[in-house]
Amino acid sequence: MTDRKFNFASGPAVLPEPVLRRAQDAIWDHAGSGIGILEHSHRGPEFTAVIERAEALLREIAGIPDDYAVMFVHGGGSSQFFMVPMNLLGEGRTADYCVTGTWGQKAAEEARRFGKVHVAATSEATNFDYIPAQVSWSEAPVYAHFTSNETIHGVQWATEPVPPPGVPLVCDASSDLLSKPIDIRKYGLVFASAQKNLGPSGVTIVIAKKSLVGAPVRDLPTMLRYATHVKERSMHNTPSTFAVYVVGEVLAWLRDQGGLTAIAEHNRAKAQLLYDFLDDSKLFRGHARADSRSLMNVTFRTGRPELDAACCDEAERRGLSGLKGHRSVGGLRASLYNAFPIAGVRALVDFLREFEAANR
Amino acid sequence: MTDRKFNFASGPAVLPEPVLRRAQDAIWDHAGSGIGILEHSHRGPEFTAVIERAEALLREIAGIPDDYAVMFVHGGGSSQFFMVPMNLLGEGRTADYCVTGTWGQKAAEEARRFGKVHVAATSEATNFDYIPAQVSWSEAPVYAHFTSNETIHGVQWATEPVPPPGVPLVCDASSDLLSKPIDIRKYGLVFASAQKNLGPSGVTIVIAKKSLVGAPVRDLPTMLRYATHVKERSMHNTPSTFAVYVVGEVLAWLRDQGGLTAIAEHNRAKAQLLYDFLDDSKLFRGHARADSRSLMNVTFRTGRPELDAACCDEAERRGLSGLKGHRSVGGLRASLYNAFPIAGVRALVDFLREFEAANR
Repeated sequence: MTDRKFNFASGPAVLPEPVLRRAQDAIWDHAGSGIGILEHSHRGPEFTAVIERAEALLREIAGIPDDYAVMFVHGGGSSQFFMVPMNLLGEGRTADYCVTGTWGQKAAEEARRFGKVHVAATSEATNFDYIPAQVSWSEAPVYAHFTSNETIHGVQWATEPVPPPGVPLVCDASSDLLSKPIDIRKYGLVFASAQKNLGPSGVTIVIAKKSLVGAPVRDLPTMLRYATHVKERSMHNTPSTFAVYVVGEVLAWLRDQGGLTAIAEHNRAKAQLLYDFLDDSKLFRGHARADSRSLMNVTFRTGRPELDAACCDEAERRGLSGLKGHRSVGGLRASLYNAFPIAGVRALVDFLREFEAANR
Repeated sequence: MTDRKFNFASGPAVLPEPVLRRAQDAIWDHAGSGIGILEHSHRGPEFTAVIERAEALLREIAGIPDDYAVMFVHGGGSSQFFMVPMNLLGEGRTADYCVTGTWGQKAAEEARRFGKVHVAATSEATNFDYIPAQVSWSEAPVYAHFTSNETIHGVQWATEPVPPPGVPLVCDASSDLLSKPIDIRKYGLVFASAQKNLGPSGVTIVIAKKSLVGAPVRDLPTMLRYATHVKERSMHNTPSTFAVYVVGEVLAWLRDQGGLTAIAEHNRAKAQLLYDFLDDSKLFRGHARADSRSLMNVTFRTGRPELDAACCDEAERRGLSGLKGHRSVGGLRASLYNAFPIAGVRALVDFLREFEAANR
């Protein structure tokens, strides 16, 4: 069996155990090549096969059409916060941002360096505990940005906002890409850092309509142009080769689980278990409004910081790790990404029930 | 023993086998934590210890003074090509570049977007086969940039160029940092992508005098300011956690090898073996001039492209992998980074001698 803990961390986060076992082997000798996966040249046939397979699996699983490019880039989601406006938002032009948490806020802040930002929706007044039902778009924005899941606050868009006709939708899907079916055609550009559902940290996936990222609106360094990475198939410079390798293995695992429909059902069942407990609890309550709850990050608290801390500590001792909430929300947070097992949610609910009985 | 090949790749490149063995274990369970190294939160105590240890080892091995910052950043060396001028070179100001190969060329090109570039030295006319003895600095440049080792052409500065007094020296040491002793005090800023001597791809080390990177000369996105990474100790966003972990293990290995003096001796012995063979050979000749030879990347050829290709193919069949030279130089290239074993150089020389006898 395993001596591994249940890892509720918000990212880097739990990965599928079969993927870890394969990665262990590949580090010594990748696919019988006599060279480890960390040591393979990114220009060699072995790594070329790795990155092409990862892209092919991603296209298959997410149903990405041919007129969309797939990029594996450096810099994390935080670098997309400036790369999007740097490439797309001309000076004096306006982009619309739906601000539903810390990540949407940060994205909007970076965009302000390049053009005008219209906040089309925000739930800041109540510390981002819901997804606004109404979005007020500006007239003809260059693009409309939203964060599909806010990792820190634990709120998630049930469906995408609908921008005015012809306005490309840009999405930071760092913490829920490939956790449920997605219709890529609804997006102009969607990005996700890998370290939630997709792999380890160090690589970010960008999926973009090719016509949107053909040429940047201003002169930019080579590495900061989407066009560079599209043209050079993510190989302008050395990619995070190992991270790309692991992403490919995670994608193969995801396909074997039945793809997005099956994983969405699995994710819904896991979150439901925990939300049902919270709804019944007299001690704990959720941060997010019921209609805006994230299936990825469940945020909750007792309302007494010292009791929250005691709860985290006790959970840690029982092998339920990484439950401390982000300081801007407090309390606890259980991240239940694709690879998180339902047995871990059951163990958490059992523990919380016991903790509640002891601390009523 | 091992079924692994001798890996002459220019990067990603061979890593120390004890490091690979430790990484294999850590992927399943890092340091008995019950969580794999890929899955640990970058904010947790385990990864904090990993990154702090890596920095401490780097400071110890390279003798980095306290008034220098150490950053672990995303984006590869290619991102430093624009981050350096973006942060340091004000509009209309001049930076000096020594252009001794492809990487120096690329660095200078990116700098031209931000200010004036004065080429203080170049060996382009002879396809970068030597390091110029004379450098013509401009009057009061903002900084002086050089590439300590040119991976593609196989030329290396024996000692740093000496800029005018008070002018910070900026160095792309991607392919030779920590391959020999370094006096950090001679530098304003030195950077190296990890995938040569330091670890896997996906992380870049920047060592900079704190006073040089205090505030950028222009308004920049948060992620592109050195000041952000200095202030937040490389944790503004999620670093490439696994790459940082492996770098730490490589540094511990390097310390156990005796540090920079010992590894320099080892590297010199390895390169000497191969250069001695080339000097005696009637079939092969080196690309670099004798006084400019790289101890990291040995570039050589027969002068007949089809024979070079046949030589590479035959070597590959004998477990001597990754010897094909870059297309801009042609021929063969043997990369002999820190972790490359001397047994591999002996095997290569034996093979080349045999190949020469068969193809005279």
